[in-house]
Amino acid sequence: MARPTPLSGFPEWLPAGRTVEQHILDALRRTFELHGFAGIETRAVEPLDQLLRKGETSKEVYVLRRLQEAPTATDPGASPSGTEQGAESDHQLGLHFDLTVPFARYVLENAGHLAFPFKRYQIQKVWRGERPQDGRFREFVQADIDVVGAGALPYHYEVELPLVIAEALGSLASIGVPPVRILVNNRKVAEGFYRGLGLDDIDGVLRGIDKLDKIGPVAVAAALVAETGATAEQAAACLELAAISGSDSTVVDRVRALAERHSITSELLETGLGELGALVAAAAERAPGVVVADLKIARGLDYYTGSVYETVLVGHEQLGSICSGGRYDTLASDGTTTYPGVGLSIGVSRLVSRLLGADLVRASRSVPSAVVVAVTSEETRAVSDRIAAALRARGIPVEVAPSAAKFGKQIKYADRRGVPFVWFPGSAASVADDGTPEPAKPDQVKDIRSGDQVEADAATWAPPAEDLWPRVQAV
Amino acid sequence: MARPTPLSGFPEWLPAGRTVEQHILDALRRTFELHGFAGIETRAVEPLDQLLRKGETSKEVYVLRRLQEAPTATDPGASPSGTEQGAESDHQLGLHFDLTVPFARYVLENAGHLAFPFKRYQIQKVWRGERPQDGRFREFVQADIDVVGAGALPYHYEVELPLVIAEALGSLASIGVPPVRILVNNRKVAEGFYRGLGLDDIDGVLRGIDKLDKIGPVAVAAALVAETGATAEQAAACLELAAISGSDSTVVDRVRALAERHSITSELLETGLGELGALVAAAAERAPGVVVADLKIARGLDYYTGSVYETVLVGHEQLGSICSGGRYDTLASDGTTTYPGVGLSIGVSRLVSRLLGADLVRASRSVPSAVVVAVTSEETRAVSDRIAAALRARGIPVEVAPSAAKFGKQIKYADRRGVPFVWFPGSAASVADDGTPEPAKPDQVKDIRSGDQVEADAATWAPPAEDLWPRVQAV
Repeated sequence: MARPTPLSGFPEWLPAGRTVEQHILDALRRTFELHGFAGIETRAVEPLDQLLRKGETSKEVYVLRRLQEAPTATDPGASPSGTEQGAESDHQLGLHFDLTVPFARYVLENAGHLAFPFKRYQIQKVWRGERPQDGRFREFVQADIDVVGAGALPYHYEVELPLVIAEALGSLASIGVPPVRILVNNRKVAEGFYRGLGLDDIDGVLRGIDKLDKIGPVAVAAALVAETGATAEQAAACLELAAISGSDSTVVDRVRALAERHSITSELLETGLGELGALVAAAAERAPGVVVADLKIARGLDYYTGSVYETVLVGHEQLGSICSGGRYDTLASDGTTTYPGVGLSIGVSRLVSRLLGADLVRASRSVPSAVVVAVTSEETRAVSDRIAAALRARGIPVEVAPSAAKFGKQIKYADRRGVPFVWFPGSAASVADDGTPEPAKPDQVKDIRSGDQVEADAATWAPPAEDLWPRVQAV
Repeated sequence: MARPTPLSGFPEWLPAGRTVEQHILDALRRTFELHGFAGIETRAVEPLDQLLRKGETSKEVYVLRRLQEAPTATDPGASPSGTEQGAESDHQLGLHFDLTVPFARYVLENAGHLAFPFKRYQIQKVWRGERPQDGRFREFVQADIDVVGAGALPYHYEVELPLVIAEALGSLASIGVPPVRILVNNRKVAEGFYRGLGLDDIDGVLRGIDKLDKIGPVAVAAALVAETGATAEQAAACLELAAISGSDSTVVDRVRALAERHSITSELLETGLGELGALVAAAAERAPGVVVADLKIARGLDYYTGSVYETVLVGHEQLGSICSGGRYDTLASDGTTTYPGVGLSIGVSRLVSRLLGADLVRASRSVPSAVVVAVTSEETRAVSDRIAAALRARGIPVEVAPSAAKFGKQIKYADRRGVPFVWFPGSAASVADDGTPEPAKPDQVKDIRSGDQVEADAATWAPPAEDLWPRVQAV
């Protein structure tokens, strides 16, 4: 087998990089759990018809086929022609491309066993057959939080969820992750404003505004005129709205003033401004400086109905949003009950890829071990094993040297992995061949960074707390 | 959308079940890390040609196709006919069916960046298109440990790895997981013995012996005669060997005695017996009663070359092995360097499915929250949010009630989720409408199990340690 090469779009990390990723996943999970979100995991596959309900993303779905089954006809929805009685004889299956579609299905499937409002976090891989590029992968990890109600869901969750994200991502500052800025908007504001202007193709206008950062205001104005039937004046007003941003209540005042200038009166707009104002005010208290109202945030997807969110890493804005989401009045529905929700999804792989690629964050070593126990001879390996077991029993990560090589080589083994300490087993009292009594020699431990070597007892010694586990830290 | 039904073979757990699984994953990871294994994660997909190198499992592979690509021809190895320049234009991709094939590829791909011997753990989902049955899934989680050397790998790792597994699974006894028995054998013993008998089709004999538990000794003997060219006497000798088991050094003596009765002298057999004896002896000291030499353990796969392992849950033997593996002299090879390894793989989903299905282990609540902070009125929700933040800052998982309903309803909200405590915000001193001064009322916290309610301060109060996080425990 020749040396394999990486697959573009399918990122993998070396052990030290995975240590950084794992640290981030642990930190996110801890914040989510401190806020009472229950962890769930869904299967990686969903019936293809469910995945295709979100029309825009259908081009990105990976479809599964068992090798032994005949390939399906060109109609992707057709049942496979195999005769095996398997799960996928009835449903063609695809890999999920986000965690929202599977969550909606999980809620419907288990509604009778869940307590609503149901708050869950979910950290899993998703797959999209997109063209890979910087920060855009075909397989990547998402960390989602959502809260879903049965029938109704109070607005205050639209305030709570971005603040949980602010806390979760903020907790990574200690390891050198740049601060984030959460940009928020409200669909009701946009829709109320557009309708008040006389525009009806709300989704079309939102799609145009969503391209503002990519193609600029002139091209967006032209697109609005060409594609949504807006007049040049209407398009200009939409751009005026999109230009408003800020992190205090004056944002609401400025939108209101703009609406007045255009003689817009809209109950929907007023409701949206009330919500946006409440979010900005709560954020100013609970996460000062993090949340910014930005009226150009549109989010491409058409199912959002209230707050929408995007998140940029300060200083890395061109990476795109690392955490997006919003409020949707119909996450799922079984015909009787409708389940509204609000949620955000962190693009963990995008974040980690930037942290590692730009060398912003690093792990202090590539293995968990704080100590390598040296082996004096293969015959006495059991002595080293016992020392290692005694240290582990006290919560210290330890490995035993692979061979009874010269101690210099064993130290090098530790050094190559960044392990800070090497432990040298002592020996019991004995009598040499010539009859001379040899006194017992105690164990010793060496800090291979400083060269300091001291006597030590595996029943009591511990490394300094900062050396116990690999440190994940700013470079 | 009608209520969806589960897909057979794709297990999912309710939040309380996922809490059990997560606890087990955390415990396994902790033991692996205490032993110095570095965590890695590989992508879920591999080029199909790599997946098909293990012939036996090829029928189980799920092949991926992007929805927009034309379906491939009936030749599963053919390149897709799409014109898109994507990763899978060159390689058809499939989902990995174990973590060994991806690990071998990862080692070759990153050999220049890894320090050997390289010890890694890997906890991920794998996919197999098998017919689902009890304990056998199409999507399931495996937790693997392996150590791989460059060029050589000392035997002592074949002793170390099953003992790490014994410790990892043993650590679950405290939550009610039944004890395990790790059954070990050594390919050198089997091969030396069979060759000494005059048999050459070693893989054929191993495949026959592997069916012993399923079809019984009479049928196995017939199969050995029919399929491997063995005489009835040779087949009987193979069955005699397979009948030997025990957890001390007399096992080795009994094999030796059997070999003598059949006039077998084999250096390979002697080497294997030395290794098997060393493993049993070390296990007797370090994990008494857990490891049993069992000469019928064959393992179907042909790449094992030394120790082989299977693990049963005591009292649930019919579930099959929950952790298997062995030594392979060629995990991977790039033509210049060969990478031998030894590893074991825990079938986490099989284990968890039994623990939950047989109601052996349960989580004490379905959410992380130890406390629900009640909301007196929507106008004062911020007061409850501040209390929650103060408790969380001290590491206590807390949620705030969804609405300012009557306190009875808010208590019911906590009760339905198994949350033990409800916090009632107090109030500052004030003056009533009639001019009567109202003194400040302190916060109170109620243990809703006992009904005890006491004054409390969010800056100092903490739940009892056993209530802080959900307990995962024997039923």
